[in-house]
Amino acid sequence: MKFITLISELRKQVQQYKEEGLSIGLVPTMGYLHEGHTRLIESARQENEIVVVSVFVNPLQFGPGEDYESYPRDSQRDVDVADKHGADIVFMPEVSELYPHPQNITITVDSSMSAVLCGRSRPGHFDGVATVVMKLLQIVQPHSVFFGMKDAQQVAIIQRMIDDFNLPVQLIGCPTVREPDGLAKSSRNVYLDDEERRQATVLIQALQVGHKRLQQSIGTVNELIETVREQIQASSLAEIDYIEVCTYPHLEPILPERQLRDVTTHVLLAVAVKIGKTRLIDNVIHEPTTGNGGDGTLCFVH
Amino acid sequence: MKFITLISELRKQVQQYKEEGLSIGLVPTMGYLHEGHTRLIESARQENEIVVVSVFVNPLQFGPGEDYESYPRDSQRDVDVADKHGADIVFMPEVSELYPHPQNITITVDSSMSAVLCGRSRPGHFDGVATVVMKLLQIVQPHSVFFGMKDAQQVAIIQRMIDDFNLPVQLIGCPTVREPDGLAKSSRNVYLDDEERRQATVLIQALQVGHKRLQQSIGTVNELIETVREQIQASSLAEIDYIEVCTYPHLEPILPERQLRDVTTHVLLAVAVKIGKTRLIDNVIHEPTTGNGGDGTLCFVH
Repeated sequence: MKFITLISELRKQVQQYKEEGLSIGLVPTMGYLHEGHTRLIESARQENEIVVVSVFVNPLQFGPGEDYESYPRDSQRDVDVADKHGADIVFMPEVSELYPHPQNITITVDSSMSAVLCGRSRPGHFDGVATVVMKLLQIVQPHSVFFGMKDAQQVAIIQRMIDDFNLPVQLIGCPTVREPDGLAKSSRNVYLDDEERRQATVLIQALQVGHKRLQQSIGTVNELIETVREQIQASSLAEIDYIEVCTYPHLEPILPERQLRDVTTHVLLAVAVKIGKTRLIDNVIHEPTTGNGGDGTLCFVH
Repeated sequence: MKFITLISELRKQVQQYKEEGLSIGLVPTMGYLHEGHTRLIESARQENEIVVVSVFVNPLQFGPGEDYESYPRDSQRDVDVADKHGADIVFMPEVSELYPHPQNITITVDSSMSAVLCGRSRPGHFDGVATVVMKLLQIVQPHSVFFGMKDAQQVAIIQRMIDDFNLPVQLIGCPTVREPDGLAKSSRNVYLDDEERRQATVLIQALQVGHKRLQQSIGTVNELIETVREQIQASSLAEIDYIEVCTYPHLEPILPERQLRDVTTHVLLAVAVKIGKTRLIDNVIHEPTTGNGGDGTLCFVH
């Protein structure tokens, strides 16, 4: 496996692979790799002959007061984990390599997609995500790029960027990977103390209750949200950031008074909850026509 | 020569050329081709084996009240002209082909580059330019892309976009092409009546006076601007939009009281003037260290 920190070197290596006719899969990460990431690497491995894993904690997507400085990092372990799971290249640039001068030209995500869900409390976050992903896509020019569905809004926005800019790449959204008790894997889980870790299961438990209402088309959107809210509020350490129900992948609002049985699009039920000081997110995607949920059992190929 | 209106068809054709190992040059235009464009096509022809000319009046770069609807169009003539000057492909998509749904994800140019010069009176203009150029670059994936230096700010911004997003393409800025009396060629010159056309030479005449001050390092930036202003104001039909002096390609302001002899960067002296109802622009670029101006005699390779 090759460890690369320079854009020029990465380009050269990828170019060589392409001249050999090999297909390239890119897995963009912020490192501190967990099983969610390794499943992405394995999916990329299945779909492509060459797998590039980027590890970069992107300052552009952190707001003031967020955890950019303290975001967990472990470069050596990331290299070992990526290698073990089949990466051909780990690309780990310094901030000064990806942003040698202020990024004067950036991607802007329309507020219809960026000021809902996580974007509501993280202004500019998705502009920063889209900007760094655009850069990585230009540097690597992969045939396919892999993201986890835990960040469903991120997947929807990157897919829209691919469509809106006619980028020649296929996005593959892979199912959320969970701990045995259902907690979604996340690099930020390391922030939780024992009691917080126990209570963190309230996200998936609440989503499962909500998912059942969606599958059975019981009541209104507002009643769905209130049911999920009650579930989460039963946890003493949980502080709700948002519980939202919207269409997927367009992230359009659905009227609170709407009966679930009348909703004909994919539905995203998403939550963000602070457990102590740690903000966790999770979601389920429901497909009304067949009754199959997008709860992490299938890759969502765009 | 191939006439193509669909993205999918263009991609397929370009892909075929690339598989044959041919290099691709892209000349993005808004059509109504004049000698400024045909020189770009000829430059592309010299540098590449395949030349793609896009013709698309991009609604995103026109503001409310600007001339999007009335912008001169002549598709058949454009095809003939492009063919005659060596284009291999003319790509002429409908608006619905490039923008099948609202462009939710767009490029934003930082105000340091977009709120000066033409951007001051055309808010959002360069965001629209950058967005459509990014799309065209993704669709064609050319080895090089050609722009005219009459739009020096556009060239600076697109070059910055290429740098900031690590786009694998070389930008070549080609000299402004002029009528025998010095008026810069522009599709909008067709708007001028006879008397306006006569007075339109005031732009280049004023720039030449200014250029001489730059070459001889006479006086301050402010005195340079006032000299150019006096020249333009001698024309009865001329209404000044702006006269600006800034660094090139960064477009950073230079203090009005600064002595020209103390300025060590490339200097852009640019004007926008309304002659009757028609807004015209023109510029010179001065390189203080050698005394050579960028007045249209050399290709400016970035």
